[in-house]
Amino acid sequence: MTTRLVAARVTSLSFTEALISTLGRRLPRLVIERVSPELDGGRYPVKRTVGAAIEVGADIYKDGHDQILARILYRADEESGWRAAPLTYDYAPDRWHGSFVADRVGRWQFTIEAWPAHFHSWRLDLEKRLEAGQDVRGELLEGARLLARAAERLGAGSRQVAELLASRVGDARLELEERLRLALSEDALACVPGPLDPAEATRYDWVLDVVVDAAVAARGAWYELFPRSQARVPGAHGTFRDTERRLPELAELGFDVLYLPPIHPIGTTHRKGKNNAPSAEPGDVGSPWGIGSELGGHTAVHPELGTLEDFDHLVAAAAAHGMAIALDFALQCSPDHPWVREHPEWFFVRPDGSIRYAENPPKKYEDIYPLDFWCDERDALWRACRDVLLHWVAHGVTIFRVDNPHTKPFAFWQWVIAEVQREHPETVFLAEAFTRPNRMRGLAKLGFSQSYTYFAWKNSKEELTEYLTELTRTEMVEYYRPNFFANTPDILHEYLQRGGRSAFRIRLLLAATLSPAYGIYSGYELCENVPLHEGSEEYLDSEKYQLRPRDWDAPGNIKSDIALINRIRREHPALAELANLELCETSSEQIFAYAKHTLGDRLIVAVNLDPHEAHDAMVSVPLQALGLDAERPFGVEDLLTGERYVWRGSDNYVRLDPAVRVAHLLLVSGQPAPEQSSR
Amino acid sequence: MTTRLVAARVTSLSFTEALISTLGRRLPRLVIERVSPELDGGRYPVKRTVGAAIEVGADIYKDGHDQILARILYRADEESGWRAAPLTYDYAPDRWHGSFVADRVGRWQFTIEAWPAHFHSWRLDLEKRLEAGQDVRGELLEGARLLARAAERLGAGSRQVAELLASRVGDARLELEERLRLALSEDALACVPGPLDPAEATRYDWVLDVVVDAAVAARGAWYELFPRSQARVPGAHGTFRDTERRLPELAELGFDVLYLPPIHPIGTTHRKGKNNAPSAEPGDVGSPWGIGSELGGHTAVHPELGTLEDFDHLVAAAAAHGMAIALDFALQCSPDHPWVREHPEWFFVRPDGSIRYAENPPKKYEDIYPLDFWCDERDALWRACRDVLLHWVAHGVTIFRVDNPHTKPFAFWQWVIAEVQREHPETVFLAEAFTRPNRMRGLAKLGFSQSYTYFAWKNSKEELTEYLTELTRTEMVEYYRPNFFANTPDILHEYLQRGGRSAFRIRLLLAATLSPAYGIYSGYELCENVPLHEGSEEYLDSEKYQLRPRDWDAPGNIKSDIALINRIRREHPALAELANLELCETSSEQIFAYAKHTLGDRLIVAVNLDPHEAHDAMVSVPLQALGLDAERPFGVEDLLTGERYVWRGSDNYVRLDPAVRVAHLLLVSGQPAPEQSSR
Repeated sequence: MTTRLVAARVTSLSFTEALISTLGRRLPRLVIERVSPELDGGRYPVKRTVGAAIEVGADIYKDGHDQILARILYRADEESGWRAAPLTYDYAPDRWHGSFVADRVGRWQFTIEAWPAHFHSWRLDLEKRLEAGQDVRGELLEGARLLARAAERLGAGSRQVAELLASRVGDARLELEERLRLALSEDALACVPGPLDPAEATRYDWVLDVVVDAAVAARGAWYELFPRSQARVPGAHGTFRDTERRLPELAELGFDVLYLPPIHPIGTTHRKGKNNAPSAEPGDVGSPWGIGSELGGHTAVHPELGTLEDFDHLVAAAAAHGMAIALDFALQCSPDHPWVREHPEWFFVRPDGSIRYAENPPKKYEDIYPLDFWCDERDALWRACRDVLLHWVAHGVTIFRVDNPHTKPFAFWQWVIAEVQREHPETVFLAEAFTRPNRMRGLAKLGFSQSYTYFAWKNSKEELTEYLTELTRTEMVEYYRPNFFANTPDILHEYLQRGGRSAFRIRLLLAATLSPAYGIYSGYELCENVPLHEGSEEYLDSEKYQLRPRDWDAPGNIKSDIALINRIRREHPALAELANLELCETSSEQIFAYAKHTLGDRLIVAVNLDPHEAHDAMVSVPLQALGLDAERPFGVEDLLTGERYVWRGSDNYVRLDPAVRVAHLLLVSGQPAPEQSSR
Repeated sequence: MTTRLVAARVTSLSFTEALISTLGRRLPRLVIERVSPELDGGRYPVKRTVGAAIEVGADIYKDGHDQILARILYRADEESGWRAAPLTYDYAPDRWHGSFVADRVGRWQFTIEAWPAHFHSWRLDLEKRLEAGQDVRGELLEGARLLARAAERLGAGSRQVAELLASRVGDARLELEERLRLALSEDALACVPGPLDPAEATRYDWVLDVVVDAAVAARGAWYELFPRSQARVPGAHGTFRDTERRLPELAELGFDVLYLPPIHPIGTTHRKGKNNAPSAEPGDVGSPWGIGSELGGHTAVHPELGTLEDFDHLVAAAAAHGMAIALDFALQCSPDHPWVREHPEWFFVRPDGSIRYAENPPKKYEDIYPLDFWCDERDALWRACRDVLLHWVAHGVTIFRVDNPHTKPFAFWQWVIAEVQREHPETVFLAEAFTRPNRMRGLAKLGFSQSYTYFAWKNSKEELTEYLTELTRTEMVEYYRPNFFANTPDILHEYLQRGGRSAFRIRLLLAATLSPAYGIYSGYELCENVPLHEGSEEYLDSEKYQLRPRDWDAPGNIKSDIALINRIRREHPALAELANLELCETSSEQIFAYAKHTLGDRLIVAVNLDPHEAHDAMVSVPLQALGLDAERPFGVEDLLTGERYVWRGSDNYVRLDPAVRVAHLLLVSGQPAPEQSSR
């Protein structure tokens, strides 16, 4: 699979050249096209989670009046045999539909096969002839011939049945009525489950891939913390053991994934000081993203955090609390990284022989050496990068948050993700790319399981509406799984800086109910909101460069909100989906509302986007989508407070005062049975 | 090309398998995707006419901050060398655009190539460094190295320039200012027109095809006539010579294409009589579609029409009048066709050994034997069919109207059209398929140049709006070229049967101004409207089964309308395009209005769809699309009458009384210059 995936965008050839080079000449009897789901003409797989029914559609047609039969061929991987699922025809859209269930994680494949159903056509024609009172004795001979051909394709038992039917349908000595009864019987139809002649079966041009992931690839509540800040003793460097002690609390808050910034030895050359000072003072701990020192590189752990065994222990303890550990995968090196000594050929070399540090002119990052992914020793470098991942997979890590993937070659990611998932298909990759839309989409298409988003910058109703429409109403739903981080160590949005505690409650609720996957970076629960300086999105005294011990129960914390919302997320399947989002019209620019529903679970959310003032609005409920009758009242229960209301019809009133509440999260409890009509 | 085209839908394989099977392992540096125009992931070509600028778009991106350069590679056919046209980047849609002109008929190809522009990136960074006041002496060495690499790729003359520049930019003994001037010079940029390393150039996965046709494939006024009805002597069987005598009149009326139903010998076995009577009376001429007798088959001409030489003479005479002859290509045989005797293996054989006639149970067509396109001797049959086409091509025929293509295999059409167009790319194929939308679209995609449509059945404003939206606002514009026949020998719509002369004028105007290609079947100009019986769309005394001599100047004819409208079509390029249609809102269900514009040619059409009553309406003019200022009046001239009006703003009044006129066909004559603002 390695070579195949990467080679997928190698050079160009015409569609027909590609096929002819592998195949002999065999003419298709039918046309199969516009197959769904299919991305970019089959170039990329769509994504699903395990247990999903994969709905398949296709246009299938041929010349003339023949009946057509068609089926999905699917398999869990390239090594498995094909299984078949039926496709049925819908006249109105002139389209065939079917589905199959992907019951395990892996890179599934499917294609479509169709064939002219000669016996079915003959049978239908026979009925028409009979209805018109025509002499059908000649036709019965034809039917007998078709059944005899069908017999040749059947196993011994069925074959006998088919041969018997053929001989009796074709037997002029029998009563005509009996011959017709047999010809039109279900038994006869059952003799022809497939094509009479395999050469008449047409397959779709491509086998399409479906990446089927573990559920955590699509949904989960993430919590980001720096283990070094978790010490209980003031001033001490936190450890994996300290982090482990926080697990019960984090499990209580309802988190599913614990994401740790890089845990590796940190370089000292050109180490940055507190608040990103150009040089470090003695005692400054440096940025965890300045990876590598004489103590080791990407496969080592920073000694002050503990040992590799301590890490293993943390992974196991988290699992015991129902949480997964996500590691950071940041492909860059401090000048002290062992690779710099051992493999200078993996880095960019200047004309003067020195190794080039990272730059974005005129900015210089002298504490970081970027890797030269296209160096002459590329194969060795790429394999080394892959082996870093496999090393941590062997230590129980199944989730990687990838740092700045858009600054490394797309071909590399396509290769390395496929390499890891080949043996470990459950591995999840989260792309931390904040860049132009095409590149963010491209990373998701080539293999990243999940992606950071622009959510942190979408704060107004207009911004949210436009962005959510893109994420939920375009082809992106097939491959782009958003993770709505409300903050990160790099992003403290002005909205949070200025909006106080209500702003944190609002953004938490939005992130957690709009997207199946969302996250917060620690400090969020304490409503930390002091920027480095006016106009900056960086934190003052950023944990990126120093220890930040905290009192997790400090007054004003919003931990009860977090625990409640995460509990509601787990209890309500409607929140586990993305594409079920229905944005609702409201009469206020400050009231943002939406509905989500899955089977019987129907939620309506109305949020006041203004953290300072109360606003009211009429909210338009998508009655039809929710299966509600416009004429009758329906009950709603606010899952945040337990309050119950009776709503009716499309337009309903809400008033949200951030001093009291920032949102309604309403469960639709259904409508009473319609009253009996008066007699 | 033969094999390639047909093999395009052979069997299925994964996208990556297809590529890997032909190519070695070479990793792409960039991503090139969402290329336009592209149909169904590259499976089918788009269509253009000769002289068109082919607008190409693509998403192109890579990791990091490198500058990118990109170009279109295109060629007129597979044998020609690639030519290049630049692609330029538009930031807002994050997309690259460019174009090339297809200056001759053929199956053009294009793909896209892009590469990281290292020198351009270096140059931009240098400017940023200089602006920040940084020491750039090390950078100049890097620039000199890049220029030296560029020199290796250049021809002798340019190479010397590049080498000189490289040595001077890198020469520490020279003034820094001079080195910078050279490094940032246009001369230096010109040294790097392509990739520094060919391995860094990425090509798009596919070479895409563009079928570039002669203009007549997309536009033209068609006239269908039965040569046998063109005799001047009452009761006589018309001939090619008789037909030739009508050419001056038809040229005067402004027709571009003269389409003749089959001109071959007609079978006698089971010949149909007048009005499709089950058996013919003595003297009945039979249906021209009952092809073949002892006198010959598809390559012969019916002796009563004349000789092959007479036909050649007709083709030449038509050409002299600026008209092309279109022949009917109907792949079916009468029981008397020579192929039945010579190649019984090309037909369906019943169990009793007899050849199967055509049926659509319970209906029987005993005068017609369908061909078995999948018979064992398929290759010979297909080649024979192709040779029929080549035979007529050799006699100067470049347009074939193909009868019922949807009852023959799609693979056959893909093959035979490619076979003929390989040597004769100017050949045009019109698909006469009236079937389900997928099949009609499929025929157009696989190679038919032009297609019949549902136009004859779209008579109400709602029907026209929906259908024209589909034809002009969906992907169909890339490949489906409609020919709006207002009537055919098989279709006399109820609207024409009941609407009188006005109905004929209305439908003529709609057909001729909505679609660049349209047609009428003779008799239309005489407003012939008598059906076989109430509820039938067949003509009474249909020309399909008998001679129909006519007085072409009979009272009430609409020949002056036809001549005028065809003249207007030739004079107004806006009517030569399809996708430029802008439907206009009107305040009446009976008033249908639309605009068409190309460069300076701006037309507004308003049609009363009710042939009986006058109606009035406000018509909404798409001012912005037409480049009109809402605040100032504009002049319009009715090209049908020469009347002039002054309109203003979006909404303008029309009243159309069919007794006087059925439509306005308005040329927008522009707006006066805006008045000077007062001083």
